Amino acid sequence: MSLKSSVKKCVKRLVARGLRWRHPVRRDLPAECWGLEYSDRSLTLRGHRLSDIAAEFGTPIHVVDEERLVRNFTALSQNTDDGACDLFYSYKTNPLPGVLKRLHALGAGAEVVSEYELWLAQKLGVPPERIIYNGPAKSLRSLETAVSLGILLINLNHFEEIDRLAGLCRRLGQKTRVAIRVTTGGGWQGQFGIPIAGGKALAAYRHALDHDELDLVGIHCHRGVLFENLAEVDSHMDEVLAFLHELWAAVGSLPEILDLGGSVCVPTVRPLTRRDLRLSRAYSVDPLPPRRDERPGLEEFPRKMVQRVESFCGARNLPVPRIVFEPGRALTGDSQMLLTRVVTTRAGSNERHYAILDAGVSLAGIVKSEFHQLLRLQAPSPGERQKTYRIVGPLCHAWDVLYPAWTTGELHEGDGLAIMDAGAYFIPEERSFSFTRPGCVSVGRDGTLAAIRRSEKFDDVVALDSNFRDEKTR
Amino acid sequence: MSLKSSVKKCVKRLVARGLRWRHPVRRDLPAECWGLEYSDRSLTLRGHRLSDIAAEFGTPIHVVDEERLVRNFTALSQNTDDGACDLFYSYKTNPLPGVLKRLHALGAGAEVVSEYELWLAQKLGVPPERIIYNGPAKSLRSLETAVSLGILLINLNHFEEIDRLAGLCRRLGQKTRVAIRVTTGGGWQGQFGIPIAGGKALAAYRHALDHDELDLVGIHCHRGVLFENLAEVDSHMDEVLAFLHELWAAVGSLPEILDLGGSVCVPTVRPLTRRDLRLSRAYSVDPLPPRRDERPGLEEFPRKMVQRVESFCGARNLPVPRIVFEPGRALTGDSQMLLTRVVTTRAGSNERHYAILDAGVSLAGIVKSEFHQLLRLQAPSPGERQKTYRIVGPLCHAWDVLYPAWTTGELHEGDGLAIMDAGAYFIPEERSFSFTRPGCVSVGRDGTLAAIRRSEKFDDVVALDSNFRDEKTR
Repeated sequence: MSLKSSVKKCVKRLVARGLRWRHPVRRDLPAECWGLEYSDRSLTLRGHRLSDIAAEFGTPIHVVDEERLVRNFTALSQNTDDGACDLFYSYKTNPLPGVLKRLHALGAGAEVVSEYELWLAQKLGVPPERIIYNGPAKSLRSLETAVSLGILLINLNHFEEIDRLAGLCRRLGQKTRVAIRVTTGGGWQGQFGIPIAGGKALAAYRHALDHDELDLVGIHCHRGVLFENLAEVDSHMDEVLAFLHELWAAVGSLPEILDLGGSVCVPTVRPLTRRDLRLSRAYSVDPLPPRRDERPGLEEFPRKMVQRVESFCGARNLPVPRIVFEPGRALTGDSQMLLTRVVTTRAGSNERHYAILDAGVSLAGIVKSEFHQLLRLQAPSPGERQKTYRIVGPLCHAWDVLYPAWTTGELHEGDGLAIMDAGAYFIPEERSFSFTRPGCVSVGRDGTLAAIRRSEKFDDVVALDSNFRDEKTR
Repeated sequence: MSLKSSVKKCVKRLVARGLRWRHPVRRDLPAECWGLEYSDRSLTLRGHRLSDIAAEFGTPIHVVDEERLVRNFTALSQNTDDGACDLFYSYKTNPLPGVLKRLHALGAGAEVVSEYELWLAQKLGVPPERIIYNGPAKSLRSLETAVSLGILLINLNHFEEIDRLAGLCRRLGQKTRVAIRVTTGGGWQGQFGIPIAGGKALAAYRHALDHDELDLVGIHCHRGVLFENLAEVDSHMDEVLAFLHELWAAVGSLPEILDLGGSVCVPTVRPLTRRDLRLSRAYSVDPLPPRRDERPGLEEFPRKMVQRVESFCGARNLPVPRIVFEPGRALTGDSQMLLTRVVTTRAGSNERHYAILDAGVSLAGIVKSEFHQLLRLQAPSPGERQKTYRIVGPLCHAWDVLYPAWTTGELHEGDGLAIMDAGAYFIPEERSFSFTRPGCVSVGRDGTLAAIRRSEKFDDVVALDSNFRDEKTR
């Protein structure tokens, strides 16, 4: 080893020690955050030991907590004195039919972004007036279905979509309800929506008004970029309300429906900063969880938005539009967890150890960029010596690192872990990369267990392949 | 708009113009690189217009070129004067049974990294002596299968696996052939292999030798980090051969099998640098393709390695070990393409236009970090005015950007495109995110078309869900 690399290594080790001295104890979010408890050192959800579920259904396996779905639904919908807000669940976030069905039973509508999701909503019996169709890539066939069904809203994403949909309606001889998707300075732009800035959104609104085939009833203003606090809600609403004012001044009325989208964060999740990632990768410093005292409750985000709209309308003596939300992660994010197991451990060099799990980035890729609490299904004995692990998945790929640094008591082959907050962007992003995909078990409010999705079998992975039979040549 | 942001925007525009002036014309790789040609302005593969395939099978759709599979197989295997090298295809790279079957028919073995892949190899009729089992997370059940079958090699990934497998063999009363996976300074480390540095690999080798249940026949030294040129091969082989020398000095013999892994790059693909990404995102500068004159031919990588081993053994008067390779991307990367279509276009601000495709990062995520040529299925008229597009996918997500900047003639709804070199890490990374997954058509050497995988239908996506029937509670 050269002198240079020796010195580098030595400095790195000293820095790492200093950093660990500054963060001497890992600060975990307590299991109570998710309504879980350690009973007899076993992590338990309403009487069920999660290790029993892992043993019965096999790992990896998703577990849905229906109680929490209800709590989140209530928090997000009943947030004003005078009644409930209208929620349309963002299908793309966690498209498990078993979960969607429960949300619909609670009263949620469907926010869909593709022909497949539109099909799924119909299949689940969602009435057309409870479906909103969003997204930048609406195929003509899907639009035809949406128009024929007469869904609540088709949100027009860009200027060109106005003439495209109007043309289709003309051909079909049908009128359809639409909204214009507008974007603010602090939210997503790019392929999404029409900017309020520069009068573009207003021009699009006027253009849509000119088409008799389009029943222009709404404005859609999903931020995309997550709201981490209420100040961000305020600044988003400032822009939205300024646009409503502009619209009112220009056309003399407000739209009937104000679709405020989603973008509310999960209380127990936070994006990892570049600093977090560097420190954990290079110096094995565990990232800290979000500070719960700094995070507003779920209900405060929609309440704030509703209040802003109400006071805007009150000041102008205008009727308050019907407000709809399209929550995704805020509704389901923390109602689900992914149970996994240590396949094998290995001692590493430089005090770094490895625990290799049966779930990797192909099932939980989002933990590479967000803080997700990891809980042990069996609590280690109190006072057990702490070790810092690099928690990796089973893929034969260098990028399969879930937690570059996680400090806990000793881990052994077979130990169970729960990756928390798996109810947003785990299911849609999962893939059968060398391994099969997990099933899903739901824990009902009364404690009953139900397998709402079975685990993938080897045969399922190749179900669409014709190689096992004789291939048909044209 | 504030003065600051106006100035910033203006500077950015000037920089962008300067950059475009420096790169006035997009330099595309010609279609001939893949054995394609424009015939009557239609992109054609051995007599088939790709637009016809797209129309018949629907987009998105994968197209496999069997002719190229054979060419690559020949280039990688027949690279020495005295015969063929032994190839074991890395299943994880492109696990399409229809492709695997063809590779096996050519003589390739199977390199598997999971119980599923081991099952698939058996299902495809691969004899045990043509299977190598790698990976950091070998479940006990999968090891049991591998031992019982008597496969060619189980490559032990880390020190702890030695005792684990020996224990299993003792319980089964069976002996098994193993190799030790070693790592070099320039390759993957982390959860993979045992470092040559510090005598760790040698200690592991000695430890494995002490177990009667293990028939230690090999060394495995997959680099992981891609070889971009022959100098990198040389420096990798320097370390490998130094280790072989150390081993020979210590135990008096060389192992019977030398498994040199894969890591050979695809000639038409290169990793995008941080600079490429910044320039394309912020300034709409198209990244340039790899310089073909700087890239050695496929066959040169294994040839170089074989030559190095032969001269090492020659100098010491030792028998040359059996050399095996585990190519993945080098074998299939450029033999496959993903056909896609423009769903809609939109004019953007600041001279940036959008083309929204029916394939996004959920099907072709790797193009975010690698240069992959995009070819139009219909060539634009010569002399047509060029526009710079941001090519995005259909997902309702800001991260669904495939090509931040791509300059071409005007694009219209319905235009077909081919994302080239889709034969590595497209299939294993694909997921049904809001949309269904593509099927795959192969074009035989004689020009016959065969659907080797059918496109996913809506029903397939929810095939494992119990929501459409009554749920069974335990």
